[in-house]
Amino acid sequence: MPESLAERRDRVLGAGAPLFYREPLHLVRGEGVALFDANRRRYMDMYNNVPVVGHCHPHVVAAVREQVGMLNVHNRYLHDGILRYGERLLARHHDGIESVVFTCTGTEAVEVALMMARLATKRRGIVCTDAAYHGNSAEVRKLARCQATTGEVRSVPFPDARRGAPADPAVWHLERLREVLDGFARDGVPVAAMVVCPIFANEGLPTAPAGYLPQAAAMVRAAGGLFIADEVQAGLGRTGHWWGSEVAGIEPDIVAMGKPLGGGVPIGAAAGSRAVVENFRRRTGYFNTFASSPLQAAAGNAVLDVIEREQLCANATRVGTMLRDGLAEIRENCEAMGEVRGRGLFLGVEWVTARDAQEAARADREGARRIVNALKDKGFLLGNAGAFGNVVKIRPPLVFSEQDAAAFLTAFAEAAGEARQAT
Amino acid sequence: MPESLAERRDRVLGAGAPLFYREPLHLVRGEGVALFDANRRRYMDMYNNVPVVGHCHPHVVAAVREQVGMLNVHNRYLHDGILRYGERLLARHHDGIESVVFTCTGTEAVEVALMMARLATKRRGIVCTDAAYHGNSAEVRKLARCQATTGEVRSVPFPDARRGAPADPAVWHLERLREVLDGFARDGVPVAAMVVCPIFANEGLPTAPAGYLPQAAAMVRAAGGLFIADEVQAGLGRTGHWWGSEVAGIEPDIVAMGKPLGGGVPIGAAAGSRAVVENFRRRTGYFNTFASSPLQAAAGNAVLDVIEREQLCANATRVGTMLRDGLAEIRENCEAMGEVRGRGLFLGVEWVTARDAQEAARADREGARRIVNALKDKGFLLGNAGAFGNVVKIRPPLVFSEQDAAAFLTAFAEAAGEARQAT
Repeated sequence: MPESLAERRDRVLGAGAPLFYREPLHLVRGEGVALFDANRRRYMDMYNNVPVVGHCHPHVVAAVREQVGMLNVHNRYLHDGILRYGERLLARHHDGIESVVFTCTGTEAVEVALMMARLATKRRGIVCTDAAYHGNSAEVRKLARCQATTGEVRSVPFPDARRGAPADPAVWHLERLREVLDGFARDGVPVAAMVVCPIFANEGLPTAPAGYLPQAAAMVRAAGGLFIADEVQAGLGRTGHWWGSEVAGIEPDIVAMGKPLGGGVPIGAAAGSRAVVENFRRRTGYFNTFASSPLQAAAGNAVLDVIEREQLCANATRVGTMLRDGLAEIRENCEAMGEVRGRGLFLGVEWVTARDAQEAARADREGARRIVNALKDKGFLLGNAGAFGNVVKIRPPLVFSEQDAAAFLTAFAEAAGEARQAT
Repeated sequence: MPESLAERRDRVLGAGAPLFYREPLHLVRGEGVALFDANRRRYMDMYNNVPVVGHCHPHVVAAVREQVGMLNVHNRYLHDGILRYGERLLARHHDGIESVVFTCTGTEAVEVALMMARLATKRRGIVCTDAAYHGNSAEVRKLARCQATTGEVRSVPFPDARRGAPADPAVWHLERLREVLDGFARDGVPVAAMVVCPIFANEGLPTAPAGYLPQAAAMVRAAGGLFIADEVQAGLGRTGHWWGSEVAGIEPDIVAMGKPLGGGVPIGAAAGSRAVVENFRRRTGYFNTFASSPLQAAAGNAVLDVIEREQLCANATRVGTMLRDGLAEIRENCEAMGEVRGRGLFLGVEWVTARDAQEAARADREGARRIVNALKDKGFLLGNAGAFGNVVKIRPPLVFSEQDAAAFLTAFAEAAGEARQAT
């Protein structure tokens, strides 16, 4: 029997390279919100945030095609494009974000953000949440689902408004942060920074208690640390705002960006005040071969062009609201659906065994997987996420239309109905 | 006065972002071995190894243009292109290199290589040289010009055949390695791996004692560790061989690759035996958003096509030998030139105050800078490198021709003559 594509993949990439779906998809083409497999079957992409303006957007494709035939070198020469891109990207942040260090990946952006904070504060302590993921390098992996209560990286419970005192649900979470900050001080490892995804994407988009993040940022700053927003997933229009930090009501000291920036061309970026960035430059001499390149500039500028011209932030809010309302309506007749969460075109549907059970106990990870595979069979590509793996992740390219949303809601209602009958 | 491009760069990227030459170059176009500035002045690129098949090679440009309009997604779907690329890349290594983990950057490839070695051996000790550079992340930076004699990362003096006993110059260096391995064992941090660039590029291409690397690899393996070759600079035809390890006479357990792989599209890769790679996959669940993508596959395959069709390994040997011989001839009348080193199209010329002085004392870093800037004024782009910063680095795209070499040698002889008169 000839070797299958999956067997060949196991041999070449090593078995265990992550793969989606019970029956993996062999993709050959993308266009807008559509992905096509080797049998020319069309799927609606409800998962991918890298092609934020849609797969193979003509404007981005044209910009990359032009630049790749013109010049593509490293950044130890002068080049106008990357400066224009940097200026445009910085202008979309609050005034305290003045200068930027480009990288290739979000992991590298978080690496740089951590170094920036540690060099600026001359401290080492980092606070993260206990169900976060910020990247794949040795240093950044320390923040992945961190349970540590000693050492340089320590976690607080990820915020969920359902925990703590109903009167002020932020209080319980802020007490946990206070304990970590006090522990850092006591152990002689004062806090350099707290780093969070401002919409807690990997945690499963839990609804944070009102006021939690602004108060947490104030506490960290009062303790002498900086606040880092990991906007790799939350940023660039995804929530209907440019940045997840705007939704959370915070103005971070340092911002890490990634995934969608280049619409498929690898771009990461870490930005902060000019003083913080220049201190980092001075102390490290940081250089990244493929970063700040004319190719990154062309792709990044083209993506910004499309988001602005096609008003994709507004589209994310409008279509996202329609999607969320539609899901909430389906939920009324589907006990397996816990919370419907999120903002703009980044939504999560909790899959639960019983709505009133405690959050970890009620998590129906298998149910969430089944619904994702059922929707794939119906032609809609989603994924699973969350601290307990039971959140159906809905994150289509931002060109997702109201018609697309209507088609998805119909399929979702069907799949939810079938899942109900099957149990 | 309007803001200059350099001032704007300091504001946007932060002052201190590395920049080449006394008068930085404002580049706008590249083609083959040529780079053009904003005044349409043509420069011959003698530095860049990322555009290994030449700037904007039509075959690579066409492949990228086609793929970017077709599909560009992450690797949790099946895709034929990346498997074909992986197979082709692996086939160019020795038989023990069976599976590959793709990344975006060389830094990420070295990150993965270190994790692979540590997970395979269940040990933490890493040996590097004292003048190496392997990347910019927190973990990999520990290997940069490492002087540590304690902890998990420790260095040996970079090999130079001029040191130690003339009868067997490898002995002195191997004794230093023995001390480090014994120190690791004594401190309960047994060795997981030794990692080197097999041609010691950042060390300035010193001539290693004959037999040093094979014997070092054997010693590390006897101590239970693995041998990692960082082929980011040395690999992909640069030396006239596919890999620097072939020049050094070693068969590494793990290989890290980067820079030239995608001809400008960010690709990094760490490869090893299938068992080592699958153990890494199993233990980490490693995923890299932009890696193993159809875009990487298209660019990587196109670069391999060109190297093979245009026989660029043979070209590197032929033109590299001509260059090296020509430089050796110029050296006869130029006391400032110390050793002429290197192999294929990666050469180094030591700039010295006196040829017979001790290596650190004789290093003429300023002289090397002056010659690089003088050659830039003559239209040839080079850089400085080495443990003492006094090596003129000659590393043109592999499509560099005999005519190109002749033009460069004429200019180099002139510049060397002018430098002699000026002193």
